[in-house]
Amino acid sequence: MPAPPANPHPMDYAPLYLKKNEDRRLRAGHVWVFSNEVDTGRSPLTAFAPGQAVRVLAAGGRPLGTGYVNPRSLISARLVSTDPSAPYSPALLHERLRAALLLRERFFAGPYYRLAHAESDGLPGLIVDRYGEILVAQINTAGMERMRTHIIDGLRELVRPAGVLLRNDGAGRALEGLPNEIEVAHGEIPETVTITENGCRFKVPLRQGQKTGWFYDHRANRARLPDYVKGRRVLDVFSYLGGWGVQAAAAGAAQVHCVEASAAAAEFIRDNAILNNVDARLTVEVEEAFTALKKLRESSQRFDVVILDPPAFARRRKDLRQGMEAYQRLNTLAMQVLNDDGIVISASCSSHVTAADFRNVVRQAGLKAQCSLQILEQGHQAPDHPVHPAIPETEYLKTLFLHVSPG
Amino acid sequence: MPAPPANPHPMDYAPLYLKKNEDRRLRAGHVWVFSNEVDTGRSPLTAFAPGQAVRVLAAGGRPLGTGYVNPRSLISARLVSTDPSAPYSPALLHERLRAALLLRERFFAGPYYRLAHAESDGLPGLIVDRYGEILVAQINTAGMERMRTHIIDGLRELVRPAGVLLRNDGAGRALEGLPNEIEVAHGEIPETVTITENGCRFKVPLRQGQKTGWFYDHRANRARLPDYVKGRRVLDVFSYLGGWGVQAAAAGAAQVHCVEASAAAAEFIRDNAILNNVDARLTVEVEEAFTALKKLRESSQRFDVVILDPPAFARRRKDLRQGMEAYQRLNTLAMQVLNDDGIVISASCSSHVTAADFRNVVRQAGLKAQCSLQILEQGHQAPDHPVHPAIPETEYLKTLFLHVSPG
Repeated sequence: MPAPPANPHPMDYAPLYLKKNEDRRLRAGHVWVFSNEVDTGRSPLTAFAPGQAVRVLAAGGRPLGTGYVNPRSLISARLVSTDPSAPYSPALLHERLRAALLLRERFFAGPYYRLAHAESDGLPGLIVDRYGEILVAQINTAGMERMRTHIIDGLRELVRPAGVLLRNDGAGRALEGLPNEIEVAHGEIPETVTITENGCRFKVPLRQGQKTGWFYDHRANRARLPDYVKGRRVLDVFSYLGGWGVQAAAAGAAQVHCVEASAAAAEFIRDNAILNNVDARLTVEVEEAFTALKKLRESSQRFDVVILDPPAFARRRKDLRQGMEAYQRLNTLAMQVLNDDGIVISASCSSHVTAADFRNVVRQAGLKAQCSLQILEQGHQAPDHPVHPAIPETEYLKTLFLHVSPG
Repeated sequence: MPAPPANPHPMDYAPLYLKKNEDRRLRAGHVWVFSNEVDTGRSPLTAFAPGQAVRVLAAGGRPLGTGYVNPRSLISARLVSTDPSAPYSPALLHERLRAALLLRERFFAGPYYRLAHAESDGLPGLIVDRYGEILVAQINTAGMERMRTHIIDGLRELVRPAGVLLRNDGAGRALEGLPNEIEVAHGEIPETVTITENGCRFKVPLRQGQKTGWFYDHRANRARLPDYVKGRRVLDVFSYLGGWGVQAAAAGAAQVHCVEASAAAAEFIRDNAILNNVDARLTVEVEEAFTALKKLRESSQRFDVVILDPPAFARRRKDLRQGMEAYQRLNTLAMQVLNDDGIVISASCSSHVTAADFRNVVRQAGLKAQCSLQILEQGHQAPDHPVHPAIPETEYLKTLFLHVSPG
């Protein structure tokens, strides 16, 4: 890591004053300041540059910590430290990245994990996934964008990667006024990498794939497959690269049928089935999920286990009602293609859909499909996607393992 | 199973009418009717015998199912079937017990599990734990009490147990006007049994122990110990029979200190440590938990992992505030005896404390102890304690695996 630039002392950072009583969320441990909470009389947002370091103060002048600001975003500021003397510096980022790496090395035998999970790792706006010697990072705020060079340098020093890819094409960047771009920030990035998860190997596309590549967040949920699928006929819907389907086959499923809308992703499922020597028991259908489920229902095809791992149906709060309806239809369809005494493994990655919402949706699907349900297990994000107890937005993944009986 | 008694046809069951709009909970899938929801003008509760079979009807006359009633309880009736033609019969109980057994046999290699989890298995008011060839049952409602003989007969036919113990000393029985009693209902019951959990063996007292003996509900959470304790110094608070502590030692903890208030239980911890050949790395302290934690704090003893598995601090809704305070004090103390970069595994089995409540308590403990928290995993009841998605009361166990850093 190069010497930090001659940064001003945090006491010289521009002050961001909150309105009266608007310090409550921060005092509870959250790190976000919304624009309507800023006392724009004392600290006009228009006076700040996007990403500028600030010290955040309560209306009475009590210092709440240091952070960075973005006048263009609804989230006006994010704290990086509750210590008012802690500078928003390359050294602070480096220390946070190091702590994040140590935590992962403690929990994972192989170098395949989410290395940095933004706010949960004290790194608001930064996501880094590790694929062995290749890193894929996503910078989602102007405050992190200003630190771009230092982030890359810090990662190079800590991990010595062969390549770092910036997948700066997340939906969050537009909200921060940042352009979308995919860029090699260091070294060379191969078209695909091969990772290991729960004893299976997977070929993963980095530039063309969804988000930052592989969905490590479901690792612990997929690790539960052996108890559910042995000797069973499994349907894997929204299969993407075959993460669930291939692991189900490897865990001893009699037969796995994968449904995936993208022909390019379907090719990866086939390759990954061969890579794990389960291609004889795995079929792939390129089809939209709801269409495929309806066709299976009409043709009276039935399964013992149905896995539903759809993309977020409610990306924005205003999509919530529509998203909930989609989850309900999807889960009803799954129960309708299920043999008696079947299992549905049903996930939602919409952060706006709470655990209670999702359970309610699944309950309604059960009523609609005239099934009795028992929740056998509830899965969450794997430990490399920690949840910050004061920041509900850091939690998004819910998985229900359901036993489904007639009646 | 003997021939069912000459039961009346469900259409001849006495009707229990609900007030207008009070059928909503049942139509959503719940099975409880509260006393203030009953139309006592049309169906006076005083006219029913405790445990009597009834058909439940909405105000408009729509049949909602069959169940049983108890005029003495706040929960006036519980549905056993939404099918109005399904009798509340020994055959129905037998079928439900059989389905419950099949589900457990599918998930568990050895005969050590909760065999019937009341409402979640369609058996409202009945709990059965299995310890190999010994069964321990708890009957918690007048409606199940009426079926007592048939339950024992059904269990004998399904499992062929050497003994069935009735631990009818749960807190719920008084609410139903039932006497507390512990009784051998079949065969012989040894003083202790030996069970297997996650590869460890445990000696368990059945007559003298807490509740129905062993707390199988934490099995999946305890199975997560190896990732957290290897080579570490572990404190196990509320150790009871050593379920967590002994498994932590067996999973490779460098040292385990168990704190347990009951001298009788502490003897079992010592025996179980010997049984698993970990007694050289495990110490037992007979002391009240809060007192022990304060002493450890004052004497500057520190641990890498602290496990908190207390009894329910909020048994009744009116205990909620006091219970939450106790959980907060407990979790703060745990963080205060923790080394930097430590782990707290914190559980709550109070059904009145929601997952959100519990997370909030832990967050506040973090603020008080001046620690940063990351929730790495969230554990729940094992699959032999299924949750009914329409009956929130069937869910009670919450476990947070927390990474705790200074600041």
